[in-house]
Amino acid sequence: MELLKNKIRDTARISEDRIIQVDNFLNHQLDISLFNEIGKEFKRRFADKEITKIITIETSGIAIACITAQYFDNIPVVFAKKHAGLNMNPDVYEAKVFSYTKNQEYTIKVSKAFLSANDKVLIIDDFLASGSALLGLVSLVNQSGAEIGGVGIVIEKTFQGGRKVVEEKGVQIESLAMIDALKDGQVFFK
Amino acid sequence: MELLKNKIRDTARISEDRIIQVDNFLNHQLDISLFNEIGKEFKRRFADKEITKIITIETSGIAIACITAQYFDNIPVVFAKKHAGLNMNPDVYEAKVFSYTKNQEYTIKVSKAFLSANDKVLIIDDFLASGSALLGLVSLVNQSGAEIGGVGIVIEKTFQGGRKVVEEKGVQIESLAMIDALKDGQVFFK
Repeated sequence: MELLKNKIRDTARISEDRIIQVDNFLNHQLDISLFNEIGKEFKRRFADKEITKIITIETSGIAIACITAQYFDNIPVVFAKKHAGLNMNPDVYEAKVFSYTKNQEYTIKVSKAFLSANDKVLIIDDFLASGSALLGLVSLVNQSGAEIGGVGIVIEKTFQGGRKVVEEKGVQIESLAMIDALKDGQVFFK
Repeated sequence: MELLKNKIRDTARISEDRIIQVDNFLNHQLDISLFNEIGKEFKRRFADKEITKIITIETSGIAIACITAQYFDNIPVVFAKKHAGLNMNPDVYEAKVFSYTKNQEYTIKVSKAFLSANDKVLIIDDFLASGSALLGLVSLVNQSGAEIGGVGIVIEKTFQGGRKVVEEKGVQIESLAMIDALKDGQVFFK
């Protein structure tokens, strides 16, 4: 997706040939026009799937998932919680996820009320790196008996290997920008 | 806003005459059609304000803020971070916020890069109760020198007094559902 790649080239900050920061449009300030183009592109790539629900994970996946849902007939979005409140219904599916950007392990949770064997879900997330968050989301969906219709990722760092987590399961995965390397402050796309 | 009040009447779970849980459409599963109606209603109520940016706070404010931004010419959304990653730019405005649903104090942060004296902001949040989160957001905006064009809240619990935090400052505040009491599992709207 050229629009997205140009935005990354123009605004991303790179450090340690490994970390890419896109706070300007994806992880802190949010570019709603761009998100609409992203939503349309996900719809184009998963047009043949009869998706009933979009699943994502807090925090940065939520905005993308909600805008995208508008292109799938306003189907519900459910986000897995990393920081469940005291009021949360205890009847949940849960999985462990490790966050490298926070150097912390989380237990992510989804209420059983909002995911069932009747659902065909599209998993949406902002980043794919090692695949820990994605593996957690796949686990939650599998526990519910729902079918995974596909996985849509905004930015994939291919050199961290997360893609194999879902490809091995035969699930269609679509990343709108695939980064093969970060070097000397530059981004090298696939 | 009748559509919202009906949704609350039909799906909210009440406990201890104080806690209202709307995980079904606002805080865990997200009703995108309803969010679009909410966005339109915020635009109607702040139509005369020349808003340049929407500010919210993670997590549940983000979805509402993004859908609402579409009715304000796709202006950028910036969310204050409760859980900043290790990569976050250290040049931030910050404020302390106490969460009663998590019984925890947070330091919320917004990068100085994304909020400036040139901005006229609309603060959006899902809930207004004691006003601690709102006071934190107002503090961040004041630190930046930006103007507050208004405050838009989805559900206000009027009996917890948060509204006075901004009314005292002469800021227009609009809540789409105002709850005066929760009693015996029932919701009493203003």
